[in-house]
Amino acid sequence: MEAKTPKQSLTVLTDLVLPGDTNYLDNLFGGELLARMDRACSIAARRHSRRIVVTASVNHVAFSKAVPMGSVVTIEAKASRAFKSSMEIYVDVWIEDLASRSRTKVNEGIYTFVAVDEKGKPVAVPQIIPETDLEKERYEGALRRKELSLVLAGKLNPNEATALKALFK
Amino acid sequence: MEAKTPKQSLTVLTDLVLPGDTNYLDNLFGGELLARMDRACSIAARRHSRRIVVTASVNHVAFSKAVPMGSVVTIEAKASRAFKSSMEIYVDVWIEDLASRSRTKVNEGIYTFVAVDEKGKPVAVPQIIPETDLEKERYEGALRRKELSLVLAGKLNPNEATALKALFK
Amino acid sequence: MEAKTPKQSLTVLTDLVLPGDTNYLDNLFGGELLARMDRACSIAARRHSRRIVVTASVNHVAFSKAVPMGSVVTIEAKASRAFKSSMEIYVDVWIEDLASRSRTKVNEGIYTFVAVDEKGKPVAVPQIIPETDLEKERYEGALRRKELSLVLAGKLNPNEATALKALFK
Amino acid sequence: MEAKTPKQSLTVLTDLVLPGDTNYLDNLFGGELLARMDRACSIAARRHSRRIVVTASVNHVAFSKAVPMGSVVTIEAKASRAFKSSMEIYVDVWIEDLASRSRTKVNEGIYTFVAVDEKGKPVAVPQIIPETDLEKERYEGALRRKELSLVLAGKLNPNEATALKALFK
Amino acid sequence: MEAKTPKQSLTVLTDLVLPGDTNYLDNLFGGELLARMDRACSIAARRHSRRIVVTASVNHVAFSKAVPMGSVVTIEAKASRAFKSSMEIYVDVWIEDLASRSRTKVNEGIYTFVAVDEKGKPVAVPQIIPETDLEKERYEGALRRKELSLVLAGKLNPNEATALKALFK
Amino acid sequence: MEAKTPKQSLTVLTDLVLPGDTNYLDNLFGGELLARMDRACSIAARRHSRRIVVTASVNHVAFSKAVPMGSVVTIEAKASRAFKSSMEIYVDVWIEDLASRSRTKVNEGIYTFVAVDEKGKPVAVPQIIPETDLEKERYEGALRRKELSLVLAGKLNPNEATALKALFK
Repeated sequence: MEAKTPKQSLTVLTDLVLPGDTNYLDNLFGGELLARMDRACSIAARRHSRRIVVTASVNHVAFSKAVPMGSVVTIEAKASRAFKSSMEIYVDVWIEDLASRSRTKVNEGIYTFVAVDEKGKPVAVPQIIPETDLEKERYEGALRRKELSLVLAGKLNPNEATALKALFK
Repeated sequence: MEAKTPKQSLTVLTDLVLPGDTNYLDNLFGGELLARMDRACSIAARRHSRRIVVTASVNHVAFSKAVPMGSVVTIEAKASRAFKSSMEIYVDVWIEDLASRSRTKVNEGIYTFVAVDEKGKPVAVPQIIPETDLEKERYEGALRRKELSLVLAGKLNPNEATALKALFK
Repeated sequence: MEAKTPKQSLTVLTDLVLPGDTNYLDNLFGGELLARMDRACSIAARRHSRRIVVTASVNHVAFSKAVPMGSVVTIEAKASRAFKSSMEIYVDVWIEDLASRSRTKVNEGIYTFVAVDEKGKPVAVPQIIPETDLEKERYEGALRRKELSLVLAGKLNPNEATALKALFK
Repeated sequence: MEAKTPKQSLTVLTDLVLPGDTNYLDNLFGGELLARMDRACSIAARRHSRRIVVTASVNHVAFSKAVPMGSVVTIEAKASRAFKSSMEIYVDVWIEDLASRSRTKVNEGIYTFVAVDEKGKPVAVPQIIPETDLEKERYEGALRRKELSLVLAGKLNPNEATALKALFK
Repeated sequence: MEAKTPKQSLTVLTDLVLPGDTNYLDNLFGGELLARMDRACSIAARRHSRRIVVTASVNHVAFSKAVPMGSVVTIEAKASRAFKSSMEIYVDVWIEDLASRSRTKVNEGIYTFVAVDEKGKPVAVPQIIPETDLEKERYEGALRRKELSLVLAGKLNPNEATALKALFK
Repeated sequence: MEAKTPKQSLTVLTDLVLPGDTNYLDNLFGGELLARMDRACSIAARRHSRRIVVTASVNHVAFSKAVPMGSVVTIEAKASRAFKSSMEIYVDVWIEDLASRSRTKVNEGIYTFVAVDEKGKPVAVPQIIPETDLEKERYEGALRRKELSLVLAGKLNPNEATALKALFK
């Protein structure tokens, strides 16, 4: 199976924030944004693996800025690292200013998907070759995050989490 | 006001077809697709004009192929021509094959939007400079379509619709 | 197969505009209206043909007036002309004033549907006998619109589009 | 204030049952049908009173037959009787057979609405003049149902509920 | 089949009122509340019967107070009485004050469900043993309500409706 | 400000999985579940703080088991630890077996909310007194998770993350 670049799985979901998507403060409701991010990430995971994929975990989503009603929201998801049958998908969320068209980052998230066959059995996925500096940084971080998940789930002894442990040396 | 290329307003909306989006034949419901196309086109019109925009008309949408449940649907909208305060937005819809990632065109549509100020009064928009062959062809066709709309609405004498009339010479 | 009148397929969909149906200007969102029109038209096409129907194209929809939140919207769709297996459905959209109950037309659209059997193969549909003046006018116009669609799709030489050409003589 | 006939408030909502409207048995979900009935009834109450209206109670809804996915559902609501500021709205629900176009009644409901002014204060509504036999029967029954509501709410002594009591004499 | 207490079927559905759930007065839309109540009641009926259940009727729902946008709405449903294969489910709806956390009752409803087997044939359900005073009162009332439904449907002679008739002695 | 127990903010959201909530494998769609969890957690955060709250981050959500269409899903959220103006909310998700009523855990998540005043400025929240063993364990873990978030965001030197560092000693 040939390795791929993150760019090959890039998925863009640009859409409006309509009144039916908002919370009682007239901003995009957090749950609706999480749902849109999940859809974009699952498409990126399908594009990378060319397989059926299922959400395994949301590793982190940081809401840094409210998204007002009427905004144009752009979600960009791409694979940041692949393991045996799981893939980490990194997603960035932007809004754009109507008059200047400059964009502001409002949110960032990390999801993990597993590729499965028709019977739901995990299958191998292509590896990732990061290209840009940001892609390389996220590729490196993905291993620490995977170790962290295993440690938190009690499936890995913290002392064997070598990449993670290096942070604290 | 500086003219712009179609590419500058390109808007991409990639999303899944979930069961709640389907008709009773388990394909994407026509009305749901029209709604997604309208959202993508209105964003392209905003990006071109940097103004509030309102839908003026749907000039044509051709449904050439059913879109099965579970599909990844990509909608790509961009401005094809601008008039005084109105813009024609051309939109193409694709689905992609999971295994091969090849894409198939399933639908194409033409929408018209008007840029307005805060009081709803029409305002001028930048002109379009088409770049690719397809963009040039759509730019040319836009004038005929505008004449046709005016003729059908009884606001233009068919004999004054010069671009349209040329088709029948 | 016995011919039918437009009235026999008349479909009425009266519903409210709730906040979840609006755009960021607090009017009915264009895409939501297109979706409701598509549902009403597909029912009219089913009633005319007594068959499964699929949306073939949206030929024209003109948005002449914004529909404010809280409005009562009435969509009236009926078959305007039938061809071999396709039907043109004409749809009018009205809002009504709460105090006076007078109604104002806000939108008008033309959709084409194809009747199919269980395997998706096109099947013949009954012809249309227009009754009112408006029905007769729409019946006449439908042939020009069909020729126009074929011309625009490159499937008919403009000089063979006799009904359409007559407009420009 | 001039009295009106039930026909003057007749409201028709014809729509499809799409997969997103169903329960896990692939029939129209009860809650979705209740919501559609409420929307149709509130429009009938607005048409009768020409006022803002609020739902006061659902007096009875009987689900007599499941509505399969893909059905064409027609909801017909009209005022059956008016009291001082409240109106009883009677609603019938039908599905139609695609091939024969014969219709089957699947559901029937009774809702009560109150007309209010801009500050939410109840205002008087026109009285009802029933025309057909069915309208007359429902008009008669409405008084018993109103008494029953008051008795069940502890606001009327059963022995003063003269219309209701007559049932048991 | 062992009898059960109402508490054993208690179902709690706490959720927000977001803008997409409101009417044009910025309160929770009646139809949306009816839909949520139906979902909660059908779960209570499943929990009591451990069977597939279908909505048979809405016997009464009283809307006593508007529910403003942004509210936290708590729906509590539990079985109040069981007959052969049908169950009466009583549902109370509350909103809570953000600052004081005191709760206010806004709505109350009575639904009837029937338990069925895989082929849709009614099956027997466990009986109810009411515990609290309120549960006992609702248990008693359920018989009168059942008689009333039968009388209104013309399936029971009013003079044989002994529990109901006792009200008017 | 008096400290509170986790139980005081317990929020229960029991609801059905209907076809409109599913993915193309007929299971509850991940994004829809994330949205429901976010709504339940934000209510728990409001109940704990008696303030307006905004989602700050999703710290972790693990999808351990698919949730089939037709399931009864119960989401239970409660505050696990409070910091100055932020609260960690822990949420557990269960489905129940129709016949046995035994429940199976399918998902678990950790969200962080911030309490704000009317102008969006963070305000202090009550502290947490954990009662059960599980609550105590989650209370302890919350500090490590907070340090981890700060380290990952580059706002805390890993060597100053004392609770976290203790894991790797």
